[in-house]
Amino acid sequence: MLEKLKQEVYEANMKLPKLDLVTFTWGNVSGIDREKGLFVIKPSGVDYDSLTPDDMVVVDLDGNVVEGRLNPSSDTPTHTVLYNQFPNIGGIVHTHSPWAVSFASAGVDVPALNTTHADTFYGPVPVSDPLTKEEIEEAYEENTGKVIVRTFQERGIDEDAVPAVLVNQHGPFAWAATPDKAVYNAKVLEVAAEMDYHALQLAGHEQIGVPQYLLDKHYYRKHGKNAYYGQDNAKSQEHAKRK
Amino acid sequence: MLEKLKQEVYEANMKLPKLDLVTFTWGNVSGIDREKGLFVIKPSGVDYDSLTPDDMVVVDLDGNVVEGRLNPSSDTPTHTVLYNQFPNIGGIVHTHSPWAVSFASAGVDVPALNTTHADTFYGPVPVSDPLTKEEIEEAYEENTGKVIVRTFQERGIDEDAVPAVLVNQHGPFAWAATPDKAVYNAKVLEVAAEMDYHALQLAGHEQIGVPQYLLDKHYYRKHGKNAYYGQDNAKSQEHAKRK
Amino acid sequence: MLEKLKQEVYEANMKLPKLDLVTFTWGNVSGIDREKGLFVIKPSGVDYDSLTPDDMVVVDLDGNVVEGRLNPSSDTPTHTVLYNQFPNIGGIVHTHSPWAVSFASAGVDVPALNTTHADTFYGPVPVSDPLTKEEIEEAYEENTGKVIVRTFQERGIDEDAVPAVLVNQHGPFAWAATPDKAVYNAKVLEVAAEMDYHALQLAGHEQIGVPQYLLDKHYYRKHGKNAYYGQDNAKSQEHAKRK
Amino acid sequence: MLEKLKQEVYEANMKLPKLDLVTFTWGNVSGIDREKGLFVIKPSGVDYDSLTPDDMVVVDLDGNVVEGRLNPSSDTPTHTVLYNQFPNIGGIVHTHSPWAVSFASAGVDVPALNTTHADTFYGPVPVSDPLTKEEIEEAYEENTGKVIVRTFQERGIDEDAVPAVLVNQHGPFAWAATPDKAVYNAKVLEVAAEMDYHALQLAGHEQIGVPQYLLDKHYYRKHGKNAYYGQDNAKSQEHAKRK
Repeated sequence: MLEKLKQEVYEANMKLPKLDLVTFTWGNVSGIDREKGLFVIKPSGVDYDSLTPDDMVVVDLDGNVVEGRLNPSSDTPTHTVLYNQFPNIGGIVHTHSPWAVSFASAGVDVPALNTTHADTFYGPVPVSDPLTKEEIEEAYEENTGKVIVRTFQERGIDEDAVPAVLVNQHGPFAWAATPDKAVYNAKVLEVAAEMDYHALQLAGHEQIGVPQYLLDKHYYRKHGKNAYYGQDNAKSQEHAKRK
Repeated sequence: MLEKLKQEVYEANMKLPKLDLVTFTWGNVSGIDREKGLFVIKPSGVDYDSLTPDDMVVVDLDGNVVEGRLNPSSDTPTHTVLYNQFPNIGGIVHTHSPWAVSFASAGVDVPALNTTHADTFYGPVPVSDPLTKEEIEEAYEENTGKVIVRTFQERGIDEDAVPAVLVNQHGPFAWAATPDKAVYNAKVLEVAAEMDYHALQLAGHEQIGVPQYLLDKHYYRKHGKNAYYGQDNAKSQEHAKRK
Repeated sequence: MLEKLKQEVYEANMKLPKLDLVTFTWGNVSGIDREKGLFVIKPSGVDYDSLTPDDMVVVDLDGNVVEGRLNPSSDTPTHTVLYNQFPNIGGIVHTHSPWAVSFASAGVDVPALNTTHADTFYGPVPVSDPLTKEEIEEAYEENTGKVIVRTFQERGIDEDAVPAVLVNQHGPFAWAATPDKAVYNAKVLEVAAEMDYHALQLAGHEQIGVPQYLLDKHYYRKHGKNAYYGQDNAKSQEHAKRK
Repeated sequence: MLEKLKQEVYEANMKLPKLDLVTFTWGNVSGIDREKGLFVIKPSGVDYDSLTPDDMVVVDLDGNVVEGRLNPSSDTPTHTVLYNQFPNIGGIVHTHSPWAVSFASAGVDVPALNTTHADTFYGPVPVSDPLTKEEIEEAYEENTGKVIVRTFQERGIDEDAVPAVLVNQHGPFAWAATPDKAVYNAKVLEVAAEMDYHALQLAGHEQIGVPQYLLDKHYYRKHGKNAYYGQDNAKSQEHAKRK
């Protein structure tokens, strides 16, 4: 069942330790088959060294386990909410990567301070609202998903243009069209947070930040119909010529 | 004698360089057989590259070497005190890991600022009182153990819920039910200290810290009878279903 | 065509991940054949793992692709301007290395604070002026090259003596007589930025900086007709003798 | 000639990249045969990857090359001065390791803030006086040695008890009875500088620092006739028993 997606989700999970995004088992990636309405996710608390594609767990969009001999990630209800609320995403990753968690612990957005950020995130990566006592005690992981969605709605942020969030005092979730690209976005967030931390110490929060036109330029170099970065779009070859 | 425990303690020691917790020989792990009242500990100043399970030294709860051709860790008297005073612990680890030592050098607790911390430590990891001149000159390593115990008693901290300490101007000790889990706790402390350092620089000490209900939620997701993280408890499978 | 140069440029590109200067595909190196007026550059967005010397793209000094089945780096127009305006340089490298980007994000020069810096850079590595909205929207990459040249002219900096720049809110470009040496300069900049960041936090920006005579001494130990570092110049052996 | 010492000095040099103490060729180790009055040193500017024991250069205590087909390290005159002025040392190492250089760039001592420091350095590791313009222009490397010696004399520091220095705006030199132990001391300095930097940011320079009795305890646990750390002295076994 969903063998190809399991392999894809397995491989995306295995990239987390390779990219220095996880310590021990603190991370998970999922991927969805939108037609079948089923997603595949890492099992809870299993070492990356012993993980296999067969260990992946299949879950439906009501959060019920459909297949798998292991328990799914304890964060599964968060993934469920995000797949239901963010219709364009195909993969989700959650980690406790240290730079992103530092910003989450401080309750500070990862601001857009440079083109590395702007290439992937069309604006600051927001810190979510804190969960209330009731939200935590009732249905913690599900409410974590809900507070992410609420934060994007309240602040008017497009989840496809800013495909990541810092859950307050917790850590990052990132997403994308595929599990592999979600892991890519999680790594960009970690690198951007590292650079931003040092830039903020050098210059102070109020004084720096990219202007809108630089954000536009870099984001749309890599996204949308006029993108010209890489090998896969019509504009790339043309761009190489002199104007 | 105690071959299985020696192997276990040896393997836990070998994890220290793997997890980037030691430079040179600056770390040691021990494990206890509570029935026999004997513990096994790394020898003093031996390179990890040349260490073998047979090098481990067996010590009784009065601190006497019972077996072993090498000198035990110079910190053995500290381990002895902790095994005598903390009845539930089965393994102890001491390192000079850089982030934890930075907090110890500054005399600052590692505060509970995020869920990574709360998953393992049910509150701040305390810095011990400094040892007095007399305590240092008399019986330094034994008094190091005593000052740890005193710090937990004076501050009303449960050593099973906060299984680590920073000895003032020295470095971390961590413990757990087994040597392997003690090493895990030492690594969590190091990662938490790294994240906390950056969060404190971003936001200042007074302004941040997890609320009690988030601490409760994350600590008890992984500990106690209602834990549901991982594969080993009754609640995990149930949790995966929708509420 | 230009097989030897392609190999050289390929090898210089492959040093970037080895020296921890790139994440994913975020970097590119080029090298020029001044006689033929052609330069060779990495293709856009190709993984280092799958890169081969044959993938390199040949471009002329008007920025037209002369040979190559892949799109050249999207930064090609920047390289074109620099080769046209800086007549002595033979190789260029661009990365998003984290310490250099941190300074670029803060809009702060990498100051000359120590001999590691002075050995390679004869003065601070400047942050470029920001590009205007018009410069970004019109011909972004070409104007990036122009703003680098303008910055060096306005501030009276000799590009052969300070062979690197931080493009404002973007990242470093470095250059040298060969692609390999350009990569060397990019690494020195990254290391100098790391050291400078910590020194500035310890001591404050106004209070520190090497005097001119120390800059002279270290820069000219390694450069020019009186250089005596290394194995390749007449003064080295002589220097080893007592004065 | 001096084959055994060449091998020893070669191996000590090869530890520098392994211990993350050098970038490129920026470091050198030497070792002396006190009876013959000759020392062996790394050649200048040679890559560690291609270094062999035969490449080592033999120099006398007047700084003349006695044997070797390559130029010796450009820092040879500094080593010469130190061997002449510090009679007990048998090995010297110089690096541009980033944490130590950060303190040197800021002109700040590496203070004694914890037992990791106190185990090796009996007090702060001093920053040397800056060299004057004349000292730099005349005989730079020789005067670097002289200013190190002067700094220790003026501040009344025993070079055997504090076996390292930060040359102002340059970087660390460390020494010991053997080349291998000198490399050990250089690594301890780097680790101590890293820890101290973070502790100083957490707590401020005036508020922290180990008391004399803790410095005494830790330094003499590892040094002198009452040392009891490790396997090589009479006190170790005795220490393990309960008092």
